[in-house]
Amino acid sequence: MDDTRQEAEDGESSDASERRNIAVQLEYDGTRLVGSQWQTTGRTVQGELESAWQRLTGEQVRWTFAGRTDAGVHACGQVANVRTHTQHSLATVQRALNALLPDDIAVRQAWHVPITFHARYSAVRRDYRYLLLLERWRVPLWRYRAVHVDEPLDLAAMAEALHGLEGEHDFAAFGSTPDGPTVRECFRATCETIERDGLRLVAIDLAANGFLRHMVRTIVGTLLQIGHGKRAAAEMADILASRDRAQAGPTAPPHGLYLMSVTYPAQG
Amino acid sequence: MDDTRQEAEDGESSDASERRNIAVQLEYDGTRLVGSQWQTTGRTVQGELESAWQRLTGEQVRWTFAGRTDAGVHACGQVANVRTHTQHSLATVQRALNALLPDDIAVRQAWHVPITFHARYSAVRRDYRYLLLLERWRVPLWRYRAVHVDEPLDLAAMAEALHGLEGEHDFAAFGSTPDGPTVRECFRATCETIERDGLRLVAIDLAANGFLRHMVRTIVGTLLQIGHGKRAAAEMADILASRDRAQAGPTAPPHGLYLMSVTYPAQG
Repeated sequence: MDDTRQEAEDGESSDASERRNIAVQLEYDGTRLVGSQWQTTGRTVQGELESAWQRLTGEQVRWTFAGRTDAGVHACGQVANVRTHTQHSLATVQRALNALLPDDIAVRQAWHVPITFHARYSAVRRDYRYLLLLERWRVPLWRYRAVHVDEPLDLAAMAEALHGLEGEHDFAAFGSTPDGPTVRECFRATCETIERDGLRLVAIDLAANGFLRHMVRTIVGTLLQIGHGKRAAAEMADILASRDRAQAGPTAPPHGLYLMSVTYPAQG
Repeated sequence: MDDTRQEAEDGESSDASERRNIAVQLEYDGTRLVGSQWQTTGRTVQGELESAWQRLTGEQVRWTFAGRTDAGVHACGQVANVRTHTQHSLATVQRALNALLPDDIAVRQAWHVPITFHARYSAVRRDYRYLLLLERWRVPLWRYRAVHVDEPLDLAAMAEALHGLEGEHDFAAFGSTPDGPTVRECFRATCETIERDGLRLVAIDLAANGFLRHMVRTIVGTLLQIGHGKRAAAEMADILASRDRAQAGPTAPPHGLYLMSVTYPAQG
């Protein structure tokens, strides 16, 4: 664990002297999950975590998540936190949760955070990666890990279109439910070819202070139209300026998407 | 496709002038398959391939497979062949099979072979890879792809033990059902650390002219005992010499195992 994360409880707790705030970094395979956020039906990351937590501590409490991920979307670095009265050490919390959680969810690390820490509101940056698999034939071992594209893509046009998304913009054109503010600052929007086990993939990396619902997948859906030559790279700026969801491309499938990491001020 | 594989039918067919022999290279995710070989219950690679083939050609025929893989074992380069009267081109065969096969099985290539070619008997070498995931905590996205090992491994001892397997030996100690000959020539037995997405893995590579049932997994099970310091590297030679299955370690789980490739004389 990173030392900078070893902040002890800072005494801001007001209602109970023993209360602490614990954060965890979660990895999950979203294939058989209906999403991160608790729902009345189906397995969710939040539901599984809260159920495991109740078995460990007896506490029936709500965990707060940094980002909402949809059914089929994976995470290497989702962050969640809970305010708790438990006396268990962090090592026990991590070991016990990993024993109690189903095999498609795991706790990569656990650390103490100030009592005011909120996984969602305290976050200053989210990094997402979207994987495309550029092969002529579908690859069974990657079918839930990357979206198969069997035609050549104009990667230079895609990179150009992505570049225009960097900076502060109103991303309403790429959000399914643009209720409330739709301005976000995008810190990174790039794509690169990577090789895995002899296969050719394209990794699309997007980082921002926040994302609207379906924003990454809608950007990727639009990007695929540009990559396939159906639209020009310059259209990305027009779509962005329109603030009209109808101008953007379709929402790309969930299984290529990974929430890679969430950044908080204390982490530098 | 490799040009050396583009051998046309060589006229050895005796019973029908149109009959040809077609080979395919198959990739599959073994997680939800009960194995490669046809069984009365459960989905098998052979069953799915023969069903797709019947739908494409109307022919109810038996395909021959190069190697038998168990439930949970994956393949990047399984080879199978069929003698057929179909007039479909190779391109049509591959495209149609990939459309008809379920999403955990795909045809990577298809090519003509001499009528006497037999995927199993003509093979001169099989390459298998077994993946271990060396991480303190289990990793959900790799749970069906590599076997998790949370304790340090003595890789030097494992490499030494593996080295002793190279050459021609009687492998009866590592075969579950040593009926018939148990002498095989092992061309390669190595292990190396590899990195994937920030994770540390160990790849154990075994190549031989043939393998007994469960041979790779029993070698890996024994190797893990050596890696954990429960047995000395030198014991591998004693186990081999004993020709007694009871001397070897347990059969390692199937999901770390991949049939990587099968080699035939014409491929050089």
